[in-house]
Amino acid sequence: MKIYLAGPDVFLPDAVDIGRRKADACARHGLVGLYPLDNAIDIAAKDASLRIFRGNEAMMNEAHAIIANLTPFRGPGADAGTVYELGYMAGRGRLCLGYTNDPSSYADRVREFTDVTSRGGRLVDAQGLTVEDFALADNLMIIHALDLRGCALVTPRSRPTEIWHDLTAFETCVRMAAGWLAASHLPASG
Amino acid sequence: MKIYLAGPDVFLPDAVDIGRRKADACARHGLVGLYPLDNAIDIAAKDASLRIFRGNEAMMNEAHAIIANLTPFRGPGADAGTVYELGYMAGRGRLCLGYTNDPSSYADRVREFTDVTSRGGRLVDAQGLTVEDFALADNLMIIHALDLRGCALVTPRSRPTEIWHDLTAFETCVRMAAGWLAASHLPASG
Repeated sequence: MKIYLAGPDVFLPDAVDIGRRKADACARHGLVGLYPLDNAIDIAAKDASLRIFRGNEAMMNEAHAIIANLTPFRGPGADAGTVYELGYMAGRGRLCLGYTNDPSSYADRVREFTDVTSRGGRLVDAQGLTVEDFALADNLMIIHALDLRGCALVTPRSRPTEIWHDLTAFETCVRMAAGWLAASHLPASG
Repeated sequence: MKIYLAGPDVFLPDAVDIGRRKADACARHGLVGLYPLDNAIDIAAKDASLRIFRGNEAMMNEAHAIIANLTPFRGPGADAGTVYELGYMAGRGRLCLGYTNDPSSYADRVREFTDVTSRGGRLVDAQGLTVEDFALADNLMIIHALDLRGCALVTPRSRPTEIWHDLTAFETCVRMAAGWLAASHLPASG
């Protein structure tokens, strides 16, 4: 079973090494991890961004599942590219798994970025826009996509020191994917 | 043709009114706008978030196209729920349209949130993570999904005063959807 390894990991200084560690963890469970950086693309090329898009999409089309790193990225919520890819895989009816290394709620994280007040029974930010307050870790579309199309979001009890390098929650997702595979009829290496 | 109207508009204090204006704009072009708040859900109910998810997903499954409001929301990029929905519709092979009322580039917006420096030929943020620098308005997955599955992101030349209420760019998307419909075999009201 092939698993698309989505996440802002590709933006890390040691992105290639993280990808190798993730693919190794998949291999230990008889799974094949597909990591976006495996598409060798010259980012200085004029059409580099389009080539990256096509490479990622081809990988997703080939994969049976996605494991999305939904750790908050440059704001109170997950990385936009990762969220797009989770939606894409959900739209294609594939198995959706995800984790975050930040166990706080979305509403609590918004408080770190802006004033949040209560108005007429709902939370609002400094612009007066509603802040989702369902005690979920991120936007409800992300969280329930995982609930209904795979497994509930995996979250550590406390924030690991190395938020971008700790793969404990990721490995839990890999084990869940392997368990799902064992209960299905897909070939492990297929 | 039914169009799912995605966006953080649902978080505005006058969210219902904006939805009505958007649906009216669709109707003027013979299209049917499906707006998430048309799902009447009691947000105080215990399973409210799951009901909202199911309502939104049912609407998307019914729609032939999506028009996503990708105006930056609580950070340098688009709203996560909207991005998930764009990915979902792309995964289902539906027509993908989108707009933003902020014409700045992603890299420029990241600079408003964190220090951005150049290192080894790439931009990095204060955490050392790469900042996408393709002169695009948001993450490349979002931008090229629109390029390849609908029309290029619609952006005003300058930021409108009423960033959450100006529907000029939205109406351009509606016209493009109507143009697409005229060239297809779908019934307008279907």
